[in-house]
Amino acid sequence: MKKELHFERAEFAARVVAVKKEMSKRGIDILLLSEPPNQNYVTGYNAFSFYTPQMVIVALNHDEPIWVGRFMDRISALMTTYLADGNIRAYPDRYVQSTLSPYDFVADVAKELGGEKAKIGVEMGGYYYSARAHADLVRALPLAEFVDADLLVNWIRIVKSPAEISIMRQAGRIADAMMERTVNTVEPGVRECDVAAAAYHQMISGTPEFGGSYSCSPPNICIGERVIAPHAHWTDEPLAPSTILNLELSGVRHRYQVVLSRTVSLGKPAPSYQKLADVVVEALNTTLESVKPGRTASEIEGVFRRTLARHGFEKEARLGYSIGVGFPPAVGERTASLRKGDETVLQTGMVFHMMPGLWLDNVGITITQSLAVTDGGHEPLTSTPRKLFVK
Amino acid sequence: MKKELHFERAEFAARVVAVKKEMSKRGIDILLLSEPPNQNYVTGYNAFSFYTPQMVIVALNHDEPIWVGRFMDRISALMTTYLADGNIRAYPDRYVQSTLSPYDFVADVAKELGGEKAKIGVEMGGYYYSARAHADLVRALPLAEFVDADLLVNWIRIVKSPAEISIMRQAGRIADAMMERTVNTVEPGVRECDVAAAAYHQMISGTPEFGGSYSCSPPNICIGERVIAPHAHWTDEPLAPSTILNLELSGVRHRYQVVLSRTVSLGKPAPSYQKLADVVVEALNTTLESVKPGRTASEIEGVFRRTLARHGFEKEARLGYSIGVGFPPAVGERTASLRKGDETVLQTGMVFHMMPGLWLDNVGITITQSLAVTDGGHEPLTSTPRKLFVK
Repeated sequence: MKKELHFERAEFAARVVAVKKEMSKRGIDILLLSEPPNQNYVTGYNAFSFYTPQMVIVALNHDEPIWVGRFMDRISALMTTYLADGNIRAYPDRYVQSTLSPYDFVADVAKELGGEKAKIGVEMGGYYYSARAHADLVRALPLAEFVDADLLVNWIRIVKSPAEISIMRQAGRIADAMMERTVNTVEPGVRECDVAAAAYHQMISGTPEFGGSYSCSPPNICIGERVIAPHAHWTDEPLAPSTILNLELSGVRHRYQVVLSRTVSLGKPAPSYQKLADVVVEALNTTLESVKPGRTASEIEGVFRRTLARHGFEKEARLGYSIGVGFPPAVGERTASLRKGDETVLQTGMVFHMMPGLWLDNVGITITQSLAVTDGGHEPLTSTPRKLFVK
Repeated sequence: MKKELHFERAEFAARVVAVKKEMSKRGIDILLLSEPPNQNYVTGYNAFSFYTPQMVIVALNHDEPIWVGRFMDRISALMTTYLADGNIRAYPDRYVQSTLSPYDFVADVAKELGGEKAKIGVEMGGYYYSARAHADLVRALPLAEFVDADLLVNWIRIVKSPAEISIMRQAGRIADAMMERTVNTVEPGVRECDVAAAAYHQMISGTPEFGGSYSCSPPNICIGERVIAPHAHWTDEPLAPSTILNLELSGVRHRYQVVLSRTVSLGKPAPSYQKLADVVVEALNTTLESVKPGRTASEIEGVFRRTLARHGFEKEARLGYSIGVGFPPAVGERTASLRKGDETVLQTGMVFHMMPGLWLDNVGITITQSLAVTDGGHEPLTSTPRKLFVK
């Protein structure tokens, strides 16, 4: 069977070392990873199978992580991870959406690793660690001590390696291709769903060199009245001769996601709207120039806020968030945000989606930039011009 | 602002009545719905915003449900629900992926509804009810009694109304269009990602009459070695002159999803493989004919199992599951499964994806049928021929 690994074995090994180091520091013997991006990060695992219970277990006393999942998905574990066969453990299908708990199976593996009375870290705030999962594990391991290890791996993921940045550049090229294709599709009379379909096609097709993947959340294609509803669904309606479209598109390569948003004005925009766009672009460019290792996320946001304030605007939502490897439902890594009060110190290798979306009473505009922090400042991960597109 | 509602107000009202009736029966005063399909079912809410905490609260002492979500998503609540403005409650952005808990905000709304000492139902096994969410709510409402109300609404959803079936027929037509487009795209030399891209484009474009939507999980496009890995990701590789493709595609209309799987043989299949396909189709057809109100899910599965056994095959995974309204990450409603021991009695209006996928040691085949249970038997929701496609 052909192995499909996108990083060197040494890189995976270094990731596991970093996770174990942090576990030791916190006195955690066994770490139960329920978050798909964290599972991918430490093992390479990539299949859309985490909607049934699936765990990666990192134990201080066991060399490799152990993947635990559904019987039919063990083949994907063999194909997409470097794990030895013995570290791939599958529960039978009778556990799936039935009255049996797959967490009893997980607990048995933890016991094999000496977990009966261990200190066990779990991802309390993760998307795939339900209240039931926690209750079942606590019941199955009554003598263990459970501690919240949410974001433990996420904070290690926040600094990307050169190999990860290289994949994110490819994702950025896909994002550029998506924006070009989508903007080209926008014409009066085209149905909103057909605009969205063009974005999806390019997302998955990718570029001739780099095939694409599904994004963590659907492209946001918010049109007309919906430009002020950032996560609205498109409709079947044809585009009006004159309307505004907010497009938030994501290029994805080997599960690494790069986000790119632009607003398109179909028909000549009102002067006040063009002015708004100019302000956003100015603030974005000024803020990008301020990105440097050693500055804090909060300081970067302050540059944006002050530039905007000079023009009489303010922004309610955060200015951006850390991005990297991701699975549905969310691209954000849940670590650093570019927002007031976030004292994360920028380091080379961090990657952010800087997203100065403005949603005012009845207009919205979004012109954004994904970037990697570099020794000298930043590297933009997409090359689509930062401007209001007018068609 | 134009309201976008896909059901009559009376239908939503009847759903809320059914939910409250079940709450009364269980002595639940306040029900906190975290599952996006359940939120959609009782309010109509449709936006991809549930990756930050979002709840729909049904209280016996309050007429309408109350939506609680993020500030920037309140516009989607105004647009896509019938709720009065006062029943749309938004928390500010400083709660998002920060140290503050939006569940404190949820708890405050519950208190307004007399929740301080109430019996509160929560969806313990839901995808969007994390261990942290539960811990935060229990902390914020220390005198309340929390009970597991997971699947309470799901079991009401299991019987679809005529209006829901009508939308699922539209989703079925989209699924048919996707399969036709995807099979047409399959040619030697075409990259796997371009096959997937064709499926995605049609999924979102839909048909000329009915625009499409994103599926709960990505189309499964498992090719060559990956036909035995049902949830594997496609690659960038070009299709070989002779290979097998398993395609699991989903048409989605207004969040209602209909699933359709077919295997495509590129090049003439081995006689043993064609024979396997014939067995699967025979078993599928025989089992479909056995579907009738009054029979149990387990009985239906038994028909399939016996037909397969006559030819010397067995199937490890369940034969199917209830489908309907859905959001990522999973289409299954987590209620009835067509499996041994599931004593759910079939009723008119139930909808299943019957999926006799067979994954043997090194081959896999999947030819499936989504169907609605009718008074006289069943109605297929897709019309793609049940056969092995050969190109």
